Amino acid sequence: MMNDVKGYTATSRVYNFSPGPAMLSREVLQCAREEMLDWHGSGMSVMEMSHRGKEFTAIAHQAEADLRELMRIPAHYKVLFLQGGATLQFAMVPVNLLRGKKSADYIYTGEWSKKAIAEAKKFCAVNVAASSEDAKFTYVPTQDQWRLDPNAAYVHYTPNETINGVEFHWIPDTGKVPLVADMSSNILSRALEVERFGLIYAGAQKNIGPAGLTIIIVQEDLIERALPGMPSMLDYKVHADNDSMYNTPPAYALYIAGLNFQWLKKNGGIAAMEKRNIEKAGLLYDFLDNSRFFRNQVRTSDRSRMNVPFTLNNSALEEAFLEQAKARGMVQLKGHRLVGGMRASIYNAMPIEGVQTLVAFMREFEDRHG
Amino acid sequence: MMNDVKGYTATSRVYNFSPGPAMLSREVLQCAREEMLDWHGSGMSVMEMSHRGKEFTAIAHQAEADLRELMRIPAHYKVLFLQGGATLQFAMVPVNLLRGKKSADYIYTGEWSKKAIAEAKKFCAVNVAASSEDAKFTYVPTQDQWRLDPNAAYVHYTPNETINGVEFHWIPDTGKVPLVADMSSNILSRALEVERFGLIYAGAQKNIGPAGLTIIIVQEDLIERALPGMPSMLDYKVHADNDSMYNTPPAYALYIAGLNFQWLKKNGGIAAMEKRNIEKAGLLYDFLDNSRFFRNQVRTSDRSRMNVPFTLNNSALEEAFLEQAKARGMVQLKGHRLVGGMRASIYNAMPIEGVQTLVAFMREFEDRHG
Repeated sequence: MMNDVKGYTATSRVYNFSPGPAMLSREVLQCAREEMLDWHGSGMSVMEMSHRGKEFTAIAHQAEADLRELMRIPAHYKVLFLQGGATLQFAMVPVNLLRGKKSADYIYTGEWSKKAIAEAKKFCAVNVAASSEDAKFTYVPTQDQWRLDPNAAYVHYTPNETINGVEFHWIPDTGKVPLVADMSSNILSRALEVERFGLIYAGAQKNIGPAGLTIIIVQEDLIERALPGMPSMLDYKVHADNDSMYNTPPAYALYIAGLNFQWLKKNGGIAAMEKRNIEKAGLLYDFLDNSRFFRNQVRTSDRSRMNVPFTLNNSALEEAFLEQAKARGMVQLKGHRLVGGMRASIYNAMPIEGVQTLVAFMREFEDRHG
Repeated sequence: MMNDVKGYTATSRVYNFSPGPAMLSREVLQCAREEMLDWHGSGMSVMEMSHRGKEFTAIAHQAEADLRELMRIPAHYKVLFLQGGATLQFAMVPVNLLRGKKSADYIYTGEWSKKAIAEAKKFCAVNVAASSEDAKFTYVPTQDQWRLDPNAAYVHYTPNETINGVEFHWIPDTGKVPLVADMSSNILSRALEVERFGLIYAGAQKNIGPAGLTIIIVQEDLIERALPGMPSMLDYKVHADNDSMYNTPPAYALYIAGLNFQWLKKNGGIAAMEKRNIEKAGLLYDFLDNSRFFRNQVRTSDRSRMNVPFTLNNSALEEAFLEQAKARGMVQLKGHRLVGGMRASIYNAMPIEGVQTLVAFMREFEDRHG
């Protein structure tokens, strides 16, 4: 069982601003440590359990029940625990959701939607219904700019772009066409009406748990048959019919995800997490907007609460910034090479103290060098 | 770093005879526990590390180097660390190794080769070059019985069948046709000439580490292009060109596998493991052959060192056997429903004391009920 929450104070632990795999809560890791050699008196590590035994079955069922409760997932949605990350979903979505149709709509808002589009083109015609490429992905196109095709098999979008730092703070309305979201980087970070989606998928390594687990939440009546000639492992129906146990699941990653769901529940669920995430992101963006040395380029209304890219007025000081941050226990702040500069990824498990420490350091750095 | 080896004595830990996910060595789990919140002074769990950072890159490189040393993998073989288990490889092997050919040879020796054959049929003609179905998979067909096709793209076999308990104690000679092996259940358990194989694959959850990691060892010149229209994630070349980092790898599972490789090296490597495995299996088979109550049905020359299925003369006593075994700290002994009876899976991490304890209990059970 999860221990009582002891707050987020790190001792030898660092504030890890990695975009993913990313920070996990200390309580989750402590629980995993305590249970490592003997889970609940079973005499086994979770890593050693038969996935069909009663111990692991209980762990998997509890994880699903907790996720359903946290996200208020309606009963007519299936939850699948698979492997392969969002990258495999870039293929599995068209492979499974075309259902005889020939094309799908994609919204192009950054590097991750770009990858999803490239992979989908292997299986169908892709209509890029909206794009923010014209401004280097620094905003989200409002829906009046979208050119949706009513005959599309589905509409795919990326609610949060980790590299570009843009996030949808609204859910698109696609009418009768199923809406599909790559929610890898903002799942569980904010309240959501799941029933507005046909399918949600997410790699675990940001807000869920360790890399190697992928969660799919899909409306049951969208699960039909995959394209012919595709591997069985790419067929949602195969996995759904086998309750995600068609083959051995990534059991330990699912266990850690389950501990994280318990941690979220103990800490007020998604509503509390969203409040905290707004506060954390607000701290950082407020500082950036008042700084004459640091800068975020994303349109104010579309800024990500999860990933905050920023640049220094003097790029020659980037190395010094990273080194000094590291000396103060803040790591993984280097931005993605496509965007440059810095990036602070502040998922659920990043405590507000981490963001406060970062802002204090940035203020000091600006005073010294600005 | 791995602690000094302290022997295998379990305290509250059970002897876990699960066919997979399976027992891990106590030392590996102890090391994982100690490093859970702070890996080598990094202030992070391995679960929290960016897969492209220097810490995790070092872990991945060390794991590969140790595996190469343990298995003496020649330099012209690529080692890939992927997801999806052997089940995804059932598709990836034909998808990648057909290379313009139309058919492949498969050796049918049990439930796992059956699954590999069924999946391969989605992509090519399958020639079942030999089968032991006639005797319910209780033996391995000798090579003089095989009807190999010299034009086959490759020959696929399953060196160890976990459900049926049969194992190849020899490596087939397939001339110029590449030999492909699903080594999920006996990799690292015995010495092997890797250069006799075109490709070896193995799900991790028996002799390597936690479920969710799959290892592929493939001759470099066999990596060409996958069948057109297949997902990028199914393309060996994509993974090889990206050093298994095309997308986020199952990082924690790879870390545990690396600890296991270090444990193997400290304990004498594969030669020592093989000696111990022969001894463990010998103890159990000797007892079975001298018993009038318990029985193993596999041909003596083809018995698995990893999975030992056995039946009781009186099947009404099976539940009592399982309950009493559990009361003595021995779990997961129930056989697969297709074969019935019992099964003891005794991979590398099962100490000889576990097998001795099992044999002593079986002797006592026979004395009481035989």
